[in-house]
Amino acid sequence: MKKNKLATLEDLYVHELKDIYNAEKQLTKALPKLAKAASSQQLKTAFEEHLEETQNQISRLDQIFERLGQRSTSTDKCDAMEGLIKEGDKFIKEEAAPAVHDAGLIVGAQKVEHYEIAAYGSLCTFAEILNFEDDLNLLKENLSEEEAADEKLSQLAESGINEAAEVGAQRDFD
Amino acid sequence: MKKNKLATLEDLYVHELKDIYNAEKQLTKALPKLAKAASSQQLKTAFEEHLEETQNQISRLDQIFERLGQRSTSTDKCDAMEGLIKEGDKFIKEEAAPAVHDAGLIVGAQKVEHYEIAAYGSLCTFAEILNFEDDLNLLKENLSEEEAADEKLSQLAESGINEAAEVGAQRDFD
Repeated sequence: MKKNKLATLEDLYVHELKDIYNAEKQLTKALPKLAKAASSQQLKTAFEEHLEETQNQISRLDQIFERLGQRSTSTDKCDAMEGLIKEGDKFIKEEAAPAVHDAGLIVGAQKVEHYEIAAYGSLCTFAEILNFEDDLNLLKENLSEEEAADEKLSQLAESGINEAAEVGAQRDFD
Repeated sequence: MKKNKLATLEDLYVHELKDIYNAEKQLTKALPKLAKAASSQQLKTAFEEHLEETQNQISRLDQIFERLGQRSTSTDKCDAMEGLIKEGDKFIKEEAAPAVHDAGLIVGAQKVEHYEIAAYGSLCTFAEILNFEDDLNLLKENLSEEEAADEKLSQLAESGINEAAEVGAQRDFD
C-alpha cells in the first residue's frame, strides 16, 4: 500500500509519534514477562514500576495525538521494538545462573530504554522547532522517565547484580 | 537447538560480545544505503565516516575475541539490529521532501547509535568487573566513538537539517 508523502516536518513528527506509540504499546506486553523472569526482587519491582510509567507515557502521547487531531493508532508496527523484544524473549529462555540471567535481562532492558531515549530526544527537537510547547513538555516528561529508568537499571547492575553474577556462578561450580 | 547454559558472567560477556559483533556486521551493510539515501552532503559524509569507524570497531572486537580464545562468528543474529535496520530500510523508501527525509534518516541512525551505546556500556561494566583491562580499553574506544557519532548526528539535526525541513516543506507548498 502506498504511503503518504512526508511533505513537512510535522508529517515526520506524527510518523515518529506513531512509531514510539506502537513501541510503548509493545513494551506494556513485554515488561510483565521481564518482571516474571527476574530473580531479584529489586529488579522485578523495577520492571513493574516501569510498566506503570509506560502506561502514563502512553496517556501523554494520547494527549498529543488529540491536540494534533490525529489518530494514535497506526497499522505500522515499530519493527525496531519488535526486534528488541524478540531478542529479550530469546534471552528469557536462555538457561543461565539466576544472577547471570538477571544481568542479561538488565542489558536487554537498557537497550530498550536507549531506543526510547533516542526516539523522545528526536521528538523533543522536532516539537521545539515546530513550536509545539505543550507537546514539548509532555515529551520531556517521557524522556526524563526513560533516562531515570536507564539510570536505575545501571545502578542495579553496578550495585550487586553483576557482582552477584560472579559469586553465583562460582557457587554453581562449588 | 539447545543453547549452552550461561553459567558465569564471562559467559554472558561473550554472549553480548557476539551480539554486538553481529550488530556491527549488519551495520556495515546498512550504512552505505543510508549514505546513498541522504540528500545533504554533510549527512552523506557522516554516514561514510561512521562506516570506517564501524570497521575499526569490528577490528577491536576481533582482538577481544582472540584474547578470549573465542570465535568471533556466531550463528546468532542480533534481532534488535535487524529490526532497527528493517525500520531504516522502510523509511528510506518513504516518499518525503529531501530535507524531511534527511531528518528522518538521522532519527533512525540515532536509534542505532543508542542501541550500541547501551551495548558497549554494559560490556564496559562487565569487562570492569571481570578485570579484563585490555578489553575495557578497547570497548571504551568503541563506546566513545558511538557517543561522538550520536553527538554529531544531533548537531546535524539541530544546525540546519531540521530547520531546512521546515523551509523545504514550505517551499513544496509555494
